[in-house]
Amino acid sequence: MARFRIGMIGCGTVGSGVLEILHRRRDDLTRLLGQPLEVVRVAVRDPERPRHHVYGFIDPEAFTGDVESVVTDPALELLVEVAGGVDEPRDWIVAGLRSGKDVVTANKATLAYHGDEIFGTARECRRTVYYEASVAAAIPIVEMIQNGLIANQITRLAAILNGTCNYVLTRMELDRMDYRRALELAQEKGFAEADPGLDVRGEDAAQKLALLARLLTHGQIPLDRIYTEGIERVTREDMEFASTLGYRIKLLAIAQLSEEGAWNLRVHPTMIPRDSILAQVQDEYNAAYIQADSAGPMLVYGNGAGSFPTASSVVADIARAARGDRPVTDSRGEEEVKFVDTEDLELRNYVRMKVLDVPGVLGRITSHFGMRQISISSIHQPDAKVGQPVPVVMVTHVSRDRVVSDALRDLEKVGLLVEPPTRIRIED
Amino acid sequence: MARFRIGMIGCGTVGSGVLEILHRRRDDLTRLLGQPLEVVRVAVRDPERPRHHVYGFIDPEAFTGDVESVVTDPALELLVEVAGGVDEPRDWIVAGLRSGKDVVTANKATLAYHGDEIFGTARECRRTVYYEASVAAAIPIVEMIQNGLIANQITRLAAILNGTCNYVLTRMELDRMDYRRALELAQEKGFAEADPGLDVRGEDAAQKLALLARLLTHGQIPLDRIYTEGIERVTREDMEFASTLGYRIKLLAIAQLSEEGAWNLRVHPTMIPRDSILAQVQDEYNAAYIQADSAGPMLVYGNGAGSFPTASSVVADIARAARGDRPVTDSRGEEEVKFVDTEDLELRNYVRMKVLDVPGVLGRITSHFGMRQISISSIHQPDAKVGQPVPVVMVTHVSRDRVVSDALRDLEKVGLLVEPPTRIRIED
Repeated sequence: MARFRIGMIGCGTVGSGVLEILHRRRDDLTRLLGQPLEVVRVAVRDPERPRHHVYGFIDPEAFTGDVESVVTDPALELLVEVAGGVDEPRDWIVAGLRSGKDVVTANKATLAYHGDEIFGTARECRRTVYYEASVAAAIPIVEMIQNGLIANQITRLAAILNGTCNYVLTRMELDRMDYRRALELAQEKGFAEADPGLDVRGEDAAQKLALLARLLTHGQIPLDRIYTEGIERVTREDMEFASTLGYRIKLLAIAQLSEEGAWNLRVHPTMIPRDSILAQVQDEYNAAYIQADSAGPMLVYGNGAGSFPTASSVVADIARAARGDRPVTDSRGEEEVKFVDTEDLELRNYVRMKVLDVPGVLGRITSHFGMRQISISSIHQPDAKVGQPVPVVMVTHVSRDRVVSDALRDLEKVGLLVEPPTRIRIED
Repeated sequence: MARFRIGMIGCGTVGSGVLEILHRRRDDLTRLLGQPLEVVRVAVRDPERPRHHVYGFIDPEAFTGDVESVVTDPALELLVEVAGGVDEPRDWIVAGLRSGKDVVTANKATLAYHGDEIFGTARECRRTVYYEASVAAAIPIVEMIQNGLIANQITRLAAILNGTCNYVLTRMELDRMDYRRALELAQEKGFAEADPGLDVRGEDAAQKLALLARLLTHGQIPLDRIYTEGIERVTREDMEFASTLGYRIKLLAIAQLSEEGAWNLRVHPTMIPRDSILAQVQDEYNAAYIQADSAGPMLVYGNGAGSFPTASSVVADIARAARGDRPVTDSRGEEEVKFVDTEDLELRNYVRMKVLDVPGVLGRITSHFGMRQISISSIHQPDAKVGQPVPVVMVTHVSRDRVVSDALRDLEKVGLLVEPPTRIRIED
């Protein structure tokens, strides 16, 4: 029986998981696919380093430090890139495609930054790049958009795509932790990296959204078209107000099609109704909610990170490649995409301010918003203490996003606030 | 450009939806797939009946009463069966496969009863039967088990597969309706058929579970191996007790792998924790929760019935067939499956009884269970009125299912109960 010969780049947490799964499920996969899947070469930076945890799954002789020789090896049918990075993986993937191989990658960053070149090369070489694992690990969201929902115009995607942020927000809500403590706990538990910047600033979610938006629009998605705001300024107080108002705070990645056919793309902390199904996605889990014209609303939920959940989707893509499944070429990026800026949307807002305890301050603030036609739906002023700065929470009706931003910026200059205001958008 | 020529059998709600979607999405599908998808012939019982609602989507000349000629037409590449029924569709599908066509079907019943013959014929003829739409309409659960989770041993599936039952149970819970009224409402809203028997008795869910279990086990699943109990005996009182105890009642279809490698398959009303994600699946929606060894827990949620949600998956399968995607042959049913009977499981139970108001009755009942080693976790006796039969609710610790059934049967004979007891299994 001919083996399906695979070259792999990288053997970290994901690569080790892939080798373990291919070993553990070898008999089943061979029977289901009609041929054994075999990783015959693995390129790593230091091939001499002992890797006892995977020697049970692969011949130690398979390791090499010569990545070029793996990428161009004509005896390999598939290249699996699980090394991470941005520019180097682009070079390896492109060279692999040019040497006639299909490519499986778990690398969102290289696809988000270099997708046009990578998918363009795949198209030119009539090869396929499979990348289910690069967005939300185990969750088959790429497959759903590419194939499962091909009959549909998707009009909205709202997704929790960063497990670190979701874990931090969940702990802040349920255990009443402050942001710092929740982030430390996430690090202790292995749900946040030592440098969590890409995660908490929303950039990781934005990269994943860029890949999904490419599938939704069939066009190119420059990262700077995605409005991106992280969770660093969300406080325990916001959590408590959200709860009082019937909401939960989630870092959502949203793609939304306007009636005029333009796409808005954004990542920001969002208040969503506590009883919505997306609000039930807690801890480190990810989920994507989709509104599709024929299928209706859909949700898919699962592990968005981790060695085995990611490797699960890498192996599914390896199996697709072995079966010769060619997903539709949604990724070519040839369609022209119209965008709507977030500042041009009409959204509801939660605004929390800490104001000076001076007579008539509430009136001055409300008239500040009223002047700009921002209509206030409710205003809350809990436990004011005489002589102390007073927390004030306001919920707006739908208002032009830019106008709210301007109003808040101006308000800071007026000298009524003791700290910058917090604004969290609301989606119902 | 060569057209992908499709013959369709049936033009009811699903078939009309397929024609409408193929029309509405024609440009996109043609561009994505590289060829137009075209239904060129449609077999219906009465071809003369006017079908104005679809004449905008298809040439009226395409309709024929001669189903055989469509099934065997050598000019067609794909047969789409959306007629419904059990035995006739089996004959059409088998004949279509034998004449060299792939087949797409939305027909769970014919696959559940005749799957061995149908999938065996497909294997013999080296053709593919695509059937995403036959289980939970829009939800891509077949794809997930066949491909997305191919790297995994799935150890548990717990699914809400019947929208009628879920709608009825939701209304009973949220609107405090009794079963009859909720079912009437479901019929008024179009979520239940005039004869809802197959749905409310759990048989529809059992047929769908049989198809999923075939994918999970790669073996044959006789329907009588699925323990099946409907929702007809669930009362508003049960809903209220469930709520008090922190549960919701759902009709779950469960496939569960024992440590010894045997499968238990069952459909019955189940109490699940109110804050579990599956408990958030309300109204007519369906969902499947999966526990997979590498991916971890997964949930997929969406419309489980309806013209367009079902047609959405039919069209996705048509696109797969047009692309030549050959899912792995999980459906061949060649593996020998070991089963565990539900009566041999250890489960927790909710038991509701209406007992005679006689002295010492509670003691006699608890000792009745104690004699059989059924350990009681809590007992509740609300609003007893002197001289009236008293409702008593009991929650057991995990107990052998058969022993609980025997105890309840014996209890009926003792003469302490004024009506048969209700027992609902609990899953945590």
